[in-house]
Amino acid sequence: MEVIPPPEEWLIRRDRTQQLMREAGLDGCLISQNIGIYYLTGSMQTGYLFVPAQGDPTYYVRRSLTRALKESKVHTVELGSFRQFGEQLAEDYPDVFGQGSADTHPRIGADLDVMPAQLYLRLTGAVPHAEWSDASMLLRRVRSVKSEYEVSCISKAAEAAAAALQEGLSVLREGMTELELMSVIETVMRRRGHVGLMRMRGYNQELVTGMVAAGEAAAEPTYFDGPAGGRGLTPAAPQSVSNRPIRRDEPILIDIGCCIDGYVIDQTRTAVIGELRPELKKAYETADKILRRSEELLQPGSKPEDIYTEALQIAAGAGLSEHFMGFGPDQVKFLGHGIGLEIDEWPVLAKGFKEPLEPGMVIAVEPKFTFPEWGVVGVENTYLITDTGCRPLTLSPEKIFEL
Amino acid sequence: MEVIPPPEEWLIRRDRTQQLMREAGLDGCLISQNIGIYYLTGSMQTGYLFVPAQGDPTYYVRRSLTRALKESKVHTVELGSFRQFGEQLAEDYPDVFGQGSADTHPRIGADLDVMPAQLYLRLTGAVPHAEWSDASMLLRRVRSVKSEYEVSCISKAAEAAAAALQEGLSVLREGMTELELMSVIETVMRRRGHVGLMRMRGYNQELVTGMVAAGEAAAEPTYFDGPAGGRGLTPAAPQSVSNRPIRRDEPILIDIGCCIDGYVIDQTRTAVIGELRPELKKAYETADKILRRSEELLQPGSKPEDIYTEALQIAAGAGLSEHFMGFGPDQVKFLGHGIGLEIDEWPVLAKGFKEPLEPGMVIAVEPKFTFPEWGVVGVENTYLITDTGCRPLTLSPEKIFEL
Repeated sequence: MEVIPPPEEWLIRRDRTQQLMREAGLDGCLISQNIGIYYLTGSMQTGYLFVPAQGDPTYYVRRSLTRALKESKVHTVELGSFRQFGEQLAEDYPDVFGQGSADTHPRIGADLDVMPAQLYLRLTGAVPHAEWSDASMLLRRVRSVKSEYEVSCISKAAEAAAAALQEGLSVLREGMTELELMSVIETVMRRRGHVGLMRMRGYNQELVTGMVAAGEAAAEPTYFDGPAGGRGLTPAAPQSVSNRPIRRDEPILIDIGCCIDGYVIDQTRTAVIGELRPELKKAYETADKILRRSEELLQPGSKPEDIYTEALQIAAGAGLSEHFMGFGPDQVKFLGHGIGLEIDEWPVLAKGFKEPLEPGMVIAVEPKFTFPEWGVVGVENTYLITDTGCRPLTLSPEKIFEL
Repeated sequence: MEVIPPPEEWLIRRDRTQQLMREAGLDGCLISQNIGIYYLTGSMQTGYLFVPAQGDPTYYVRRSLTRALKESKVHTVELGSFRQFGEQLAEDYPDVFGQGSADTHPRIGADLDVMPAQLYLRLTGAVPHAEWSDASMLLRRVRSVKSEYEVSCISKAAEAAAAALQEGLSVLREGMTELELMSVIETVMRRRGHVGLMRMRGYNQELVTGMVAAGEAAAEPTYFDGPAGGRGLTPAAPQSVSNRPIRRDEPILIDIGCCIDGYVIDQTRTAVIGELRPELKKAYETADKILRRSEELLQPGSKPEDIYTEALQIAAGAGLSEHFMGFGPDQVKFLGHGIGLEIDEWPVLAKGFKEPLEPGMVIAVEPKFTFPEWGVVGVENTYLITDTGCRPLTLSPEKIFEL
């Protein structure tokens, strides 16, 4: 059943965006990315959203206008000729762009971390008098705090992932390939409404349903911006599942997620057919210890980077620094990440993230240990920051699944 | 079984690229997109590929260098500090960037249609003396002509799609939802090695396995850059399958594809449980007529835009102009598209594409007719341009599947 966001949702999102824009001294923001547009309009058609620092946004739509007019919660019009977009904006927002505006060079932010350079160059040509700046960080900050509606969407995705894991574990047998196991898991999530991929903001990053990987295939280093990538099916898609058969007594990393009603969940469990060797059991226990300690720290006021630092210390205390979050030169430098419409949202539990946590943030925490010859063990839950601490949204039981 | 490209493949791709670069007066090209990098190196790790107008390219890798060194067919090194990338390039390519170069402002092309503006701005800062230009069209032109190896990959994907269609048709029943049918089709393709999504170059475009859509849900206009988008599961992913049950006597559009070893296929068939109304049968016959005429025209020397023009004329002759390739304002302005590592490759069968067809081009031709209340009918095959004409790579039987 589809849950509908309450009508005030869109006003609250707009107000939060405009508040941060004014603090940053921006006169307006132009949003080009489908997800950014959806967040503020409820529609994901092709076009641009202009948000002035004060007043009503306008959604300029190329295609499909018909559909945008049905879905959008903000003022929606047809995008005229792109070359005249500057004139269209000046007409609609004379206080910002017009001859009558106090500021002849309005400061306009845009989502430059995702907007292609070609479009950026055309845009600066079409809207010549604006002074453009990168509003990526601002937009990511706005979205880092989720509404009740958004949390309910993530929870629905969590239900699908839990059901998929259960089904996957029930069919898991020695000799089955990673791909075969993943296909069972994917079918459960898909039939529950997974849209087919998990959106990722990072350039050149892609994600379908996460990864299932066993033994040394899980430990293969990848370009993927996560602690474990997996071998993949081909050098042309070098991450996630491979055709490797799953064997006895090796760790099976089941790092899965899905996207339902636009929102993604991310969770990891470790399984084994038989028993893990003692070194891997110890590493899993260390991951568990990091997760427990993170749960204590996940509360309003905590600094994300401090949680990462504590994790590094626990890993070091166990003598596992070199194996933490990838191996050697292929380690990633974070413990967890915000999650919502995209899987790589803010805040990141990493150095440099000093802004204190706030209620409503949703963060996936994923301590993992990589052993090049043996594989990867770890655990990952997604948490909601509450007024006093945190609450897991992940529903799967937490343990090494020994089959 | 994985097919391995012959060793000379990489040299031929490089030579073709450098040939066009020299014709365009470029001193070098910097490629940032994962697919562009893969095409020229055989590896898809995070980094940048520099291709000089003459001599050997270098693949500068951030992560995973280990994996890139294993996979890459070109000279591969670690990417140092991004800020010093300009210096690294000057050291490696003194003839292009160095103090000793004849040209103090080398002309460097880049894939600006996909490179994010933020990266572009950092790059122009890190490599300050270069004169940057957009090499998107050049790179798309290089890739428009496929090698024998590439055609064999696309053919493998075509086999998977044909098997998936057959399985889908065998389970199709009245009352089944679009999503349920698609899930069956997807499972077949996935287990045959579909990497999980079909890559698309266009900004904000995404594609998993195409779409299955029935009746008026197929005809819903979308942002998707194709003649039929579909209702989708949510406004947050407003295209492809929905939860609508499939009914008797309505057209079921099965527009599917997959990505195997990096290469995609795209095909469409129309099915019905029962019988289509006469207007839809007539429209299907017109689509068939357009496809047959296109097959006559698909040969070296033909202009892509002429094939589109002929299609428009056949549609007009049948009194179906308003329904061709989408309905009314939501029509798209093309008949087909190149296909390879991405689904939206060159050439496009559309106005403005005047460069004659060449042997080795692979093009999906997809005449479709949209009726807002009834749905979409049509057919799509992918063709290889041969020395004398064309050869379909699509393997599925061609007809209205009446169940």
